[in-house]
Amino acid sequence: MQKLRVGIVGGSGYSGATMAGLLLSHPVFELAFCTSDSKSGELVRDLALPTSSSTIRFSPNAEAGTLARDVDAIVLATSATVSAEFVRAAGPSHAPIVDLSGAFRLASAQDYADWYALDHPAADRLADAHYGLPELFGPPPPDARLIANPGCYPTATLLALGPLWRDGLLQDAPLIVDGKSGVTGAGRQSKEAFSFGAHAENFRAYRLLRHQHQPEMKRHLGLLHKSGAPPALTFTAHLLPVRRGILATCYAQPAPGVTEAQLRESLQAAYGDSKFVRVMPPDAVELSVVVGTNTAAVGVAANASTVIVTTAIDNLLKGAAGQALQNLNARFGLDEATGLSGLQRGAF
Amino acid sequence: MQKLRVGIVGGSGYSGATMAGLLLSHPVFELAFCTSDSKSGELVRDLALPTSSSTIRFSPNAEAGTLARDVDAIVLATSATVSAEFVRAAGPSHAPIVDLSGAFRLASAQDYADWYALDHPAADRLADAHYGLPELFGPPPPDARLIANPGCYPTATLLALGPLWRDGLLQDAPLIVDGKSGVTGAGRQSKEAFSFGAHAENFRAYRLLRHQHQPEMKRHLGLLHKSGAPPALTFTAHLLPVRRGILATCYAQPAPGVTEAQLRESLQAAYGDSKFVRVMPPDAVELSVVVGTNTAAVGVAANASTVIVTTAIDNLLKGAAGQALQNLNARFGLDEATGLSGLQRGAF
Amino acid sequence: MQKLRVGIVGGSGYSGATMAGLLLSHPVFELAFCTSDSKSGELVRDLALPTSSSTIRFSPNAEAGTLARDVDAIVLATSATVSAEFVRAAGPSHAPIVDLSGAFRLASAQDYADWYALDHPAADRLADAHYGLPELFGPPPPDARLIANPGCYPTATLLALGPLWRDGLLQDAPLIVDGKSGVTGAGRQSKEAFSFGAHAENFRAYRLLRHQHQPEMKRHLGLLHKSGAPPALTFTAHLLPVRRGILATCYAQPAPGVTEAQLRESLQAAYGDSKFVRVMPPDAVELSVVVGTNTAAVGVAANASTVIVTTAIDNLLKGAAGQALQNLNARFGLDEATGLSGLQRGAF
Amino acid sequence: MQKLRVGIVGGSGYSGATMAGLLLSHPVFELAFCTSDSKSGELVRDLALPTSSSTIRFSPNAEAGTLARDVDAIVLATSATVSAEFVRAAGPSHAPIVDLSGAFRLASAQDYADWYALDHPAADRLADAHYGLPELFGPPPPDARLIANPGCYPTATLLALGPLWRDGLLQDAPLIVDGKSGVTGAGRQSKEAFSFGAHAENFRAYRLLRHQHQPEMKRHLGLLHKSGAPPALTFTAHLLPVRRGILATCYAQPAPGVTEAQLRESLQAAYGDSKFVRVMPPDAVELSVVVGTNTAAVGVAANASTVIVTTAIDNLLKGAAGQALQNLNARFGLDEATGLSGLQRGAF
Repeated sequence: MQKLRVGIVGGSGYSGATMAGLLLSHPVFELAFCTSDSKSGELVRDLALPTSSSTIRFSPNAEAGTLARDVDAIVLATSATVSAEFVRAAGPSHAPIVDLSGAFRLASAQDYADWYALDHPAADRLADAHYGLPELFGPPPPDARLIANPGCYPTATLLALGPLWRDGLLQDAPLIVDGKSGVTGAGRQSKEAFSFGAHAENFRAYRLLRHQHQPEMKRHLGLLHKSGAPPALTFTAHLLPVRRGILATCYAQPAPGVTEAQLRESLQAAYGDSKFVRVMPPDAVELSVVVGTNTAAVGVAANASTVIVTTAIDNLLKGAAGQALQNLNARFGLDEATGLSGLQRGAF
Repeated sequence: MQKLRVGIVGGSGYSGATMAGLLLSHPVFELAFCTSDSKSGELVRDLALPTSSSTIRFSPNAEAGTLARDVDAIVLATSATVSAEFVRAAGPSHAPIVDLSGAFRLASAQDYADWYALDHPAADRLADAHYGLPELFGPPPPDARLIANPGCYPTATLLALGPLWRDGLLQDAPLIVDGKSGVTGAGRQSKEAFSFGAHAENFRAYRLLRHQHQPEMKRHLGLLHKSGAPPALTFTAHLLPVRRGILATCYAQPAPGVTEAQLRESLQAAYGDSKFVRVMPPDAVELSVVVGTNTAAVGVAANASTVIVTTAIDNLLKGAAGQALQNLNARFGLDEATGLSGLQRGAF
Repeated sequence: MQKLRVGIVGGSGYSGATMAGLLLSHPVFELAFCTSDSKSGELVRDLALPTSSSTIRFSPNAEAGTLARDVDAIVLATSATVSAEFVRAAGPSHAPIVDLSGAFRLASAQDYADWYALDHPAADRLADAHYGLPELFGPPPPDARLIANPGCYPTATLLALGPLWRDGLLQDAPLIVDGKSGVTGAGRQSKEAFSFGAHAENFRAYRLLRHQHQPEMKRHLGLLHKSGAPPALTFTAHLLPVRRGILATCYAQPAPGVTEAQLRESLQAAYGDSKFVRVMPPDAVELSVVVGTNTAAVGVAANASTVIVTTAIDNLLKGAAGQALQNLNARFGLDEATGLSGLQRGAF
Repeated sequence: MQKLRVGIVGGSGYSGATMAGLLLSHPVFELAFCTSDSKSGELVRDLALPTSSSTIRFSPNAEAGTLARDVDAIVLATSATVSAEFVRAAGPSHAPIVDLSGAFRLASAQDYADWYALDHPAADRLADAHYGLPELFGPPPPDARLIANPGCYPTATLLALGPLWRDGLLQDAPLIVDGKSGVTGAGRQSKEAFSFGAHAENFRAYRLLRHQHQPEMKRHLGLLHKSGAPPALTFTAHLLPVRRGILATCYAQPAPGVTEAQLRESLQAAYGDSKFVRVMPPDAVELSVVVGTNTAAVGVAANASTVIVTTAIDNLLKGAAGQALQNLNARFGLDEATGLSGLQRGAF
């Protein structure tokens, strides 16, 4: 079988290298190129998949545009600024792109000015982008050209609150999302604040009230509801002393008369057929259940006044490269779990 | 100077051993006895303070009642059930007791039935107990006989929300407290769920909607407000992969027109003279600032619709033994920082 | 294609569950049964591979003997005592067995009395067992009935020292092996000494001078050398505050005139064709290069008087279940990397 | 009482800040100045001891020379290069200096060229320096002007092997020291290799066969023996995923007929009166016994052919600032434990 050729722009960061590892062992896709200035010339497999026999080497980022003209699909594991500019420069007829950055997740140029301090160079493409959270927004259509892969915190949050909000089970009162992420969520870091000495046995909140994932959560919750209106929502991000994994604790108020059983049924109905989302008791939702895999775990507890939904994902897999591959699989008509079903848990 | 003699009941758990270490190096108090069945006969210093020359050994718990008749003060580092029974059995004329358990923090026997599954044997003493959070409830009065040392999560939460709630700066809307604690908060554990293999690189919530610290928070916030009414409050506890430290992220809604600056001023006014509470930017509040010391760090961020207060303490010091010593110091007329001001940060 | 059916005895420990996860995603083998008393009746996939659609459940250990009569191969993830007795009870005509325990790695009943305190019930089978370290002892022969899967520390040590010892590059002076292992090497634990509170930020040696892996290392180094004589060797095990991974630092003295370059060439000659062993600079050998994969990393440094070889493996994969699958693949004529080449690194 | 004034040069690194914390709570010494370019102008207490009321602020490093003219003692928490130059520039009549760097631990200018790549500017002062390991080399003499505070690995190693080597209980065969250190041993780091993402759940050796602590160990073992000859010794350093603590595993061969009991007695004789060294069973020697304190733990195991000595210290206390204070105390006629005996264990 002729393999489908996929290139990665920005392949030495955590998400990009995870993507490269997945492609190097995929039965249908093959890694066509992988760019990185810091690793240029080195074997991709040394970073991404030591057991691979692939002889492909990192190319300089400057060659990305040229290399991308000759592939079946492109994954952008770059910053929002670089992704936006890449799409602009690619013009109207590029191969299907999955963008891991936030550059195509919000609705308008104004949103990017407000939350990303970005004068978006390809704002005309925002309306084209398919938001790639398959369990809630469906697989990418067969002709999708631009897939905005969801952020890690929004993936966790939307999987937790999406079905309940869509089904009208929550009051229209402010939602609180208290998110906690492993450090790979911040990318490779050489700042002292991210050193082991500073970060081990430590924990803190960051970017309070101004994290760019908050508008992404609000927008897509809004799109799930018949009213279309985004809910009031406060999101706080925290940095866990772990490498991988996100756990979000989401607080809401139940619509009058709604019971815990109804909330659980809503989640089970949403995810009963899903290969990647498991509904569990809320205190069984933990990082070790999901890290190393593309699985999300979701659980709910509630009483008459409060709903708490906990959800856990691996931020580099279901929160980034794993979900990107799930989207790519679906875009090309493959089973969405191809190359993902054999991923082993990192812990028990 | 004749030293004041203090005994510890239950001295080999994390809090009890921390208390023993503090007493073994205190200039005014001396360790009179320390009970533990599992360590009975062993030198206390081997567990608590290796550089001490003290030759005191752990006594069996069964001797606690007798030993306690001959001391100036008693610290109970026992479960709520054991503490409650100890106080009952001690009768009306015991030496001053600081109880690290929850047995004397709530208002009524019914509360103990509801939240501790405890048929409280000394409910007649609940009204006597001084709630030992000096920064908000003052030092114990000179004749205090029973000091209820606050819980670790309530200490963090009340230091964060107490001044703001007292000063009327928050709306009467549900408060959300998302708490995260190191594993020593759960005591010594020999369950597989608390093994390093299960807990490292992991994170999870526990006891959702039924944690016994929730009514303690509500009661004491209520007592701080002129209305006396406890607020609506949801508390969730999580287990961090660290040994020591609690960080609480508290969510509220500002009273109309209240600004972030006003909220910060309220905290500064409350803690400006405190030796142990520091007001900081909210994202500078982190475990490493406080672990190893009796210090709490508090910070606030707010916009027109949301108030977020973060707070951090060492759960074994400001959240348990350190605060107990702070209370004991004050009860006996010493500077509240005696034996606590030299504690060194465990990290930078 | 008709799949080959493999059963696991003792499938809920760390190694057994890792094996189950590998078999649940293997293209040729299928999981025929998996026993565990503690998990009996639960879905194996919930522990081992959440994305699997397998509906196989854990069976009680007591059924292992009966279930094992109807499979193509058996993996014993049990203690040495249980493995030895299983082989005895299975009689002469069992399906091929890969034993993860130490029960068939030493030469004589006396060795088992000395190092395992075991009165070996199947000592007559010791001579049958193929020692399953393919890179040094070759793949199991096509008719192998009993494969002794090497211990985790011996795998690391033999990969480090084996080629050098075999090639006569080391003096016949005492070898020192200083081994460090993550806690999963000790199996699931519910002792306080293995709790997160006791083990995080901690490090210690254990079983000094009496670890049962020492005679296994000596015996198999001896078998590699033309003299057949086991070398003098001291092995010390340490417990790292990590979950997975072993790093061994091995000390020897170079034979007269031997250079670092010659030592490196010996390793490269031994592993040049290997899919699973990579020769690297000795300070680039680290856990994160190998954890999550079946790869071993080996590096050497030397001067005129000292040889140091460092080696790293994932103790649950190359040190246990991964190597068992490598052996099983080879035993049934498959490429040795089948089902192992897609394993993703747990970190970068 | 008039306090003795001590200044710190280089006070914002891990060792310097630990020293500052100890001085801010010392009953006899007071912090006279503390230099740091990165923290210049900030309150020292914010970094070093939050509960202090000291208003002293970090001064620029350029002012160190001037400030040092007006103090009773100086602590250099600087690199070897800076320390050596500071001593040269200070001329012949400086206040007593404790140097935490390696600049005055070796014997000759050639040693510094070989191991530190340093053209030593004050080699004429090498002979003056007192090696400040009190348990083996005695307290600094009352007129000591230059105290070379031992390195962290040498402190651990010499405490382990020193008495045995001095007492002639070990063969004159190569000694192996396999050392493992927490990351604070490498100082504050902003390289990606020291990031939490790269270092957590990881472990590796570094600087194989060329670590500058090796000649320091050899020299001082030699000085302890009547022959004066340094032994053959190989030292390897490893980086543990912990913040604080060193454990060294030392291998030797017993002199003919020497038993484990004799070795243990040698250690007990050496340390029976010590406040800071505890002899324990060798597998009870672990980081958690010592971290947070100035205590060292030492244990020995042996058979007819092998001696293993394990030792553990807190690298920032007994391995740096704690030992420096122990030396300063003794130099000024105070009890060596002043300001050190109340340090609390960071863990149990």
